[in-house]
Amino acid sequence: MARPFISLLTDFGLRDPSAAICRGVILGIAPEAEIVDLSHVVRKYAIRDGALLLWCALPYFPIGAHVAGVDPGVGTERRPIAVQVKRGDYLVAPDNGILLMAADKLGGVTAAVELREAAYRLPVVSTSFHGRDIFSPAAAHLSLGVPLERLGPSIEPTTLVRLPIPEPRVSRGRLETHVLYVDTFGNVKLTALGPALREALGAAPYGTRVELELTPAGERSRMVLATWSATFGTVARGEPLLYEDSYGRLCLAVNQGDAAAALGLVEDLGVTIRRAG
Amino acid sequence: MARPFISLLTDFGLRDPSAAICRGVILGIAPEAEIVDLSHVVRKYAIRDGALLLWCALPYFPIGAHVAGVDPGVGTERRPIAVQVKRGDYLVAPDNGILLMAADKLGGVTAAVELREAAYRLPVVSTSFHGRDIFSPAAAHLSLGVPLERLGPSIEPTTLVRLPIPEPRVSRGRLETHVLYVDTFGNVKLTALGPALREALGAAPYGTRVELELTPAGERSRMVLATWSATFGTVARGEPLLYEDSYGRLCLAVNQGDAAAALGLVEDLGVTIRRAG
Amino acid sequence: MARPFISLLTDFGLRDPSAAICRGVILGIAPEAEIVDLSHVVRKYAIRDGALLLWCALPYFPIGAHVAGVDPGVGTERRPIAVQVKRGDYLVAPDNGILLMAADKLGGVTAAVELREAAYRLPVVSTSFHGRDIFSPAAAHLSLGVPLERLGPSIEPTTLVRLPIPEPRVSRGRLETHVLYVDTFGNVKLTALGPALREALGAAPYGTRVELELTPAGERSRMVLATWSATFGTVARGEPLLYEDSYGRLCLAVNQGDAAAALGLVEDLGVTIRRAG
Repeated sequence: MARPFISLLTDFGLRDPSAAICRGVILGIAPEAEIVDLSHVVRKYAIRDGALLLWCALPYFPIGAHVAGVDPGVGTERRPIAVQVKRGDYLVAPDNGILLMAADKLGGVTAAVELREAAYRLPVVSTSFHGRDIFSPAAAHLSLGVPLERLGPSIEPTTLVRLPIPEPRVSRGRLETHVLYVDTFGNVKLTALGPALREALGAAPYGTRVELELTPAGERSRMVLATWSATFGTVARGEPLLYEDSYGRLCLAVNQGDAAAALGLVEDLGVTIRRAG
Repeated sequence: MARPFISLLTDFGLRDPSAAICRGVILGIAPEAEIVDLSHVVRKYAIRDGALLLWCALPYFPIGAHVAGVDPGVGTERRPIAVQVKRGDYLVAPDNGILLMAADKLGGVTAAVELREAAYRLPVVSTSFHGRDIFSPAAAHLSLGVPLERLGPSIEPTTLVRLPIPEPRVSRGRLETHVLYVDTFGNVKLTALGPALREALGAAPYGTRVELELTPAGERSRMVLATWSATFGTVARGEPLLYEDSYGRLCLAVNQGDAAAALGLVEDLGVTIRRAG
Repeated sequence: MARPFISLLTDFGLRDPSAAICRGVILGIAPEAEIVDLSHVVRKYAIRDGALLLWCALPYFPIGAHVAGVDPGVGTERRPIAVQVKRGDYLVAPDNGILLMAADKLGGVTAAVELREAAYRLPVVSTSFHGRDIFSPAAAHLSLGVPLERLGPSIEPTTLVRLPIPEPRVSRGRLETHVLYVDTFGNVKLTALGPALREALGAAPYGTRVELELTPAGERSRMVLATWSATFGTVARGEPLLYEDSYGRLCLAVNQGDAAAALGLVEDLGVTIRRAG
C-alpha cells in the first residue's frame, strides 16, 4: 500500500518548534506518512497568501491530506474544519477562507465537517495551538482512512467562509487587476490569469510593450512600461516584463532583479494594463 | 519494524549545507530513519534557546534519538555526549547544558556516555563540525539499536553541565520572572509556568488586568498593563495579553501583533507580574 | 531494495511553494524516494554559491540523483542537462556551470545528456519553472533506474559550461586567494584549500600569526591580523582566526562572531596571506 501523503502549510516560521511538532504528532498517529512542508514561512496571519500557495501547489502534490495552519483567530469561535474535494484530497484548516481557492481548483468541495470529535484530536486541546492539537491529528487520521464524517458534524459547504478577492475586469482594451502576492524573488503575482490579458489586448505577440497604471488605494496613479514576454531572459537584465507564470497567472518581474522593490509593487495595489501608446 | 525516529536541532541555518549533510550522514548509516528537523535556525550559539525548543518539542515526538547541535565550543574540551532518558529516547549533544531541560521533562537521565568510540564516529573527525562527524553518526547508530555503552565511557549524570536559568519567585502577590525566549511571532515566553501565576494572584478569572514591571539589567523599570487571557483573540487586535501557552508556560503577546517589538521585550529582561491597581 | 535517494538545491526560497512542488512532483513519479533538501535559500541567481554547496555536501550524501536549480537563464537557450559521475550519482541542472565542481569531486563526469525527451518531463513545460517541469522529473526517473541515454541526446562533457573561479597562487611565502562564500555564521570560505597554505608558509604550527591583505576590486588594500588555528575556541571570543574548515578549505572566522561583518569580507574580495611580521 502507498504511504499516506500529508502536506503542511503554516505561518509558524522555522525557528520555533511548532512546525516540527505538527510533523511529530502526525508521525505518532501515522508513522508511515510521507509529509511535505509546503511552506512554514507564510507571512504571519496572511490567510490569502496561504490560499494562493495551496492553489499553486496542491495540483502538483499526490492526493492526500493537506493542513493549512494560518489562523489568527485560534481559540475563538471560528470553526476548525476538514473538507473533501472532488480529486479525493482532504483539506484541513480553520474556517477562515484559506482552503476554498485550492478546493475549487481540485474540483470543488464534496463534503465538509467541523472537527469536534475528541477521539481525533490530541487528548488535551490548547487555546493557542490548534495546528498541533486539532488539525495535524485530523489530517493523520484521515490519511489512514478514517471516514470524514467520523471527525465531526457535517457542514453545509455554502456556509464556508470565502476570502474577498477582487475580480479582474476587462473593458475597452484594458485589464484592471490587483497585486495578489509578492514572491521571494520580488516577482509579483496578479489576481488575473492569462486569458484575461488576451481578452483585453487581443492576440499580442511576445515583445509587445504594455503600460501599467499603478494605483495605490486613495492615491494618484503612476505609469510603468513593461514588455509582454515568454520568460525572464528574453528582456535585458534589469528590465521589467509582464508574463504568464508557470501556473497560468499574470505576473510582473524584472529580469534577474526584484520587481516589487524596483517598481514599488505591494499587495493590493491596483494595476491596469493596456497596450503602450 | 517501525522506522527509527531521529530529530535534529541546530543553529546551522538553512542556506549552508551543514544541516542537510547531517541528514545525509544519518541516512548513510540508517537508511530507513525518519528524520525530523526540529529547527536549524536556532539563534547562533544560543544554547538556552535550543534547550527550550527541545523541552517544547520532544514530548510530542515519537521516542527516538535527538541531536542538539548548538555548539559554540566545538573542537575545545567540552565533552560530546549521549544520554538516555526514562521515556526511552537518546539525546545527543555537546555537554553544554542544552539537553537537561528536555531530559528532565522526559523523566530524567538514566545513563550517559562520552562519545569517544571511533567506530561510531565518521572515519575523519574535524575540529569544527562535530554535528556531522560525531553527533549525527551517534544518533544513527543508537537509532539502529547499538547499546549506549558501546559509544564511549560512562559519565556520572550529576557531572553534566546545567544551564543557569533564574528560578521564578512568588512573594506578596507578585511573580518575579524573566524573559526566556522571543518567538517568530514576537510572542514572549517567560521562565515561569502557569501554576506560579496562580500561586501569586490566586484564582484570577480571564479578563483580570495585570501590571507588568519590566526591569532591564542595571536600568530603571517601567510599567505595562496586559489582560490575563485564554487566547489571543479574546482581546482587541493590537492589545497586550498574558496567557498560558500550549506548553503550560506563561507568555506575553499582542493580538495579531509583535509583543517583543511593541513592548520592548528582550531575552533576560526581568518581569514582575501583579494585579493591576 | 533501498529507497532511491534524491537531493534538491535551489534558490527558490522557503516561503514560496516552488521547492515543495518539486518534492511533490518527484513523489508523484517515485513515491518511495528519500528526498533531502540540500538548500533552498541559496542566494538568488548565485550559481557559484550553489556549486560550492554541492561540492561540500554530495560526498556526504548517499549515491543518488541531485537536482541543482539555480537558473537565472530559465527559458532561454541554456541546455537542461543530466550528467553521471564516476561515483554513480546523477546530477541534474541547467548547463550553467553549477555542477562541475561537485562532479569533479565525485570522480568526474562519465556521461552527459541534454534533457529533451518529452516522456521524462511533465506533460506541459513552462518557460519559467524548469525545476518543476524538467529537472525534478528527470531526477525522479533516473532514481528509478531509467538509463541516462533515454532522457535525451548525448553531450560531449568537454562542452559543458564551467564557472570562472580564479585559481589561488602561491609565491614567495604568500598565498593569493579570494573570498568564495560567506556562510550564515559570517564565516568566510576562500578559494584555496589547506595544502596551499602549507605550501606558502611551510609547516606553521597552530598559533602562528598571519597577516591578511584584503584588496577590494579597484581599491586600496588594508591589513588584518589573524591566528592560524585548529578551531574557533582556541582564540579568545571576538578574535579573528584562519583555519582549515571541515571540508579542507581555508576559512576566516571570528570566535563566536561574524567575521564577514567584523572584517568587511565580501564575495570576490582578494585576500593575500603571509606570516605576520
